[in-house]
Amino acid sequence: MIRKGLVPEDVSPMIEIVRATGFFRAEEVAIAVELMEQNLAQGALRTGYHFMRAFGPDGSLAGFACYGPIAGTEGSFDLYWIAVHPLSQGQGLGRLLVETAAEEAIRSGGRLLYAETSSQPLYEPTRAFYGRNGFREIAKLPGFYRPGDDKIVYARDLIAKPS
Amino acid sequence: MIRKGLVPEDVSPMIEIVRATGFFRAEEVAIAVELMEQNLAQGALRTGYHFMRAFGPDGSLAGFACYGPIAGTEGSFDLYWIAVHPLSQGQGLGRLLVETAAEEAIRSGGRLLYAETSSQPLYEPTRAFYGRNGFREIAKLPGFYRPGDDKIVYARDLIAKPS
Repeated sequence: MIRKGLVPEDVSPMIEIVRATGFFRAEEVAIAVELMEQNLAQGALRTGYHFMRAFGPDGSLAGFACYGPIAGTEGSFDLYWIAVHPLSQGQGLGRLLVETAAEEAIRSGGRLLYAETSSQPLYEPTRAFYGRNGFREIAKLPGFYRPGDDKIVYARDLIAKPS
Repeated sequence: MIRKGLVPEDVSPMIEIVRATGFFRAEEVAIAVELMEQNLAQGALRTGYHFMRAFGPDGSLAGFACYGPIAGTEGSFDLYWIAVHPLSQGQGLGRLLVETAAEEAIRSGGRLLYAETSSQPLYEPTRAFYGRNGFREIAKLPGFYRPGDDKIVYARDLIAKPS
């Protein structure tokens, strides 16, 4: 089940999910905390960061996503964050988060939903996830994160039917 | 001549330069104002936005640039803004701004300096400027800004000799 928005008591479990995935470095976790605090203080509309939470069958928080419009564009949205706890993966929660973010973006005039990740072997599951959820690899920035670690940019067309 | 940093009395002339170029939409001008105010309130190190100003032979402010490290990367920097007043173009101030930003980035461990612009005909001079100042086109994001208006991503290698 998806619940839109963010409530203070879910911040700690969300950070725990981010840590448990093993996909995010300490600096990235710190950015996530900052985004959540900004969102709680100022609201999604003012910050441009829209959170949603995914709950497992037992009602516990199992994942979340954060998306928003990209400033200076007409209809381009970024899927800034998506994370599902390792113990809750394989149940379709990631797909549900992506589909909900895509629907919400479309409702706000979205044409394209972007996501980005690293070329490193660790992120092979992440890249496969985007591939089977309607995203195409559209660009590669060699050495972006660090030498030998490229940024891969994915886009999902929100106007065509999702694949 | 280049002066590093930002002083309150230069903000109005800088906004005037941005407007005079004709390259920036009202929304982008608003973003520039916000960046400058953040920088003045919190300083370059805390915000990650480093400004520098270029002065013409008569001592008047003629252009500026803003660059900074990209969060989550090791040694990738972004040239967020560069603008020279139309009446002061063709005097090498743009090149001086790029070279100074590149030197400063290298001093802070920079490996790559990124810049981005639009594929629209209006920005042909901008793209040519990057091309003759050591940047290579490394990626294109179709329809990023709006339908038919792609984002072109440029990178300059700060470790190899500039071309």
